[in-house]
Amino acid sequence: MYNISGDTMIKHPIPKKTYKKAVNKSNMGMTLESDIEATNQYYLDMNIAVIYKKPTPIQVVNVNYPKRSMAKITEAYYKTPSTTDFNGIYKGKYIDFDVKETNSKTSIPLSNIHPHQVEHLRSVEAHGGIAFLIVHWKYYDEHYYLPCSILLQYYDNVKKGGRKSIPYQTFKENAYLIPFSLNPRLDYLSVIRSLSLV
Amino acid sequence: MYNISGDTMIKHPIPKKTYKKAVNKSNMGMTLESDIEATNQYYLDMNIAVIYKKPTPIQVVNVNYPKRSMAKITEAYYKTPSTTDFNGIYKGKYIDFDVKETNSKTSIPLSNIHPHQVEHLRSVEAHGGIAFLIVHWKYYDEHYYLPCSILLQYYDNVKKGGRKSIPYQTFKENAYLIPFSLNPRLDYLSVIRSLSLV
Repeated sequence: MYNISGDTMIKHPIPKKTYKKAVNKSNMGMTLESDIEATNQYYLDMNIAVIYKKPTPIQVVNVNYPKRSMAKITEAYYKTPSTTDFNGIYKGKYIDFDVKETNSKTSIPLSNIHPHQVEHLRSVEAHGGIAFLIVHWKYYDEHYYLPCSILLQYYDNVKKGGRKSIPYQTFKENAYLIPFSLNPRLDYLSVIRSLSLV
Repeated sequence: MYNISGDTMIKHPIPKKTYKKAVNKSNMGMTLESDIEATNQYYLDMNIAVIYKKPTPIQVVNVNYPKRSMAKITEAYYKTPSTTDFNGIYKGKYIDFDVKETNSKTSIPLSNIHPHQVEHLRSVEAHGGIAFLIVHWKYYDEHYYLPCSILLQYYDNVKKGGRKSIPYQTFKENAYLIPFSLNPRLDYLSVIRSLSLV
């Protein structure tokens, strides 16, 4: 048992290697996500847009009631999300996106994006919303706004025998670099404005 | 410990009364919510709109790794949601709402709606989205679409000494009855169309 709050109560000690692996896995993308969350908070505070991260979907199996007023979940599992992580409204427009990051220097595998996330973004676009991915290239420390249309182009091409990843070169040429600053940290709405989507 | 999957593993037996109370509490609004979820599925299947329920926010405290590939949450708690439960896109418009139900014959207390939910709906409207509540009057078995503006009218009036609930009469006169049918079960988008909001 791994207590994230720091005070330990080890019942089933886990070999250090597994433990480390697990921690790394659960922290993957945390910096990017918190950068986006800080940006969204800025948008909210400045009354620019209302965009939130959806809670992580969890399947609750057991609930305990140590007090009448308190439900303590004692067994639960992470579920695969059915949609993307972020959505909201900007200048009357519906906004929907997910964030991904890669250590690669050359390409991001399409396997990083769940098929149902791709299909979700596709229908958002079909219904007139603004759908995209934010991709963090950790090696270059660059964040790109990748329009849904380019994602779909690569994704749909796999069935026709196309490559299973999107090259960095495509980002350089067809995606949009998101400016990184102190506040807002990742001003992705500036890309939407520059594309005249709102 | 209460195992919702049916197979029991009672570690801390709970007096029957508390147990029942807990179950009732956690099931509160489940029928209404599942009616809305079935409706949203219908909208999705028919390619009418893309509207989802957000996952319930849960604060994870302890995670256990029985297998390398599996994270088992062993301690977690329900958190108060910061926004409403449902949002999505319909004909290019951002849609945002919450569902409430009441057993009362006469009025629904404003305390049923969290202040941050009200403020969230207020900013959605301010940014050009469609914000509302769906209220199920169980006694009458009627479902109403209550525009955000009416909710705000009552909510903002409390500070000026106004009543702390919205009367049923207001629903009869100023809200919109949502048709109930087999499929879609609660066609709330028909109200939005009839109000020419899209």
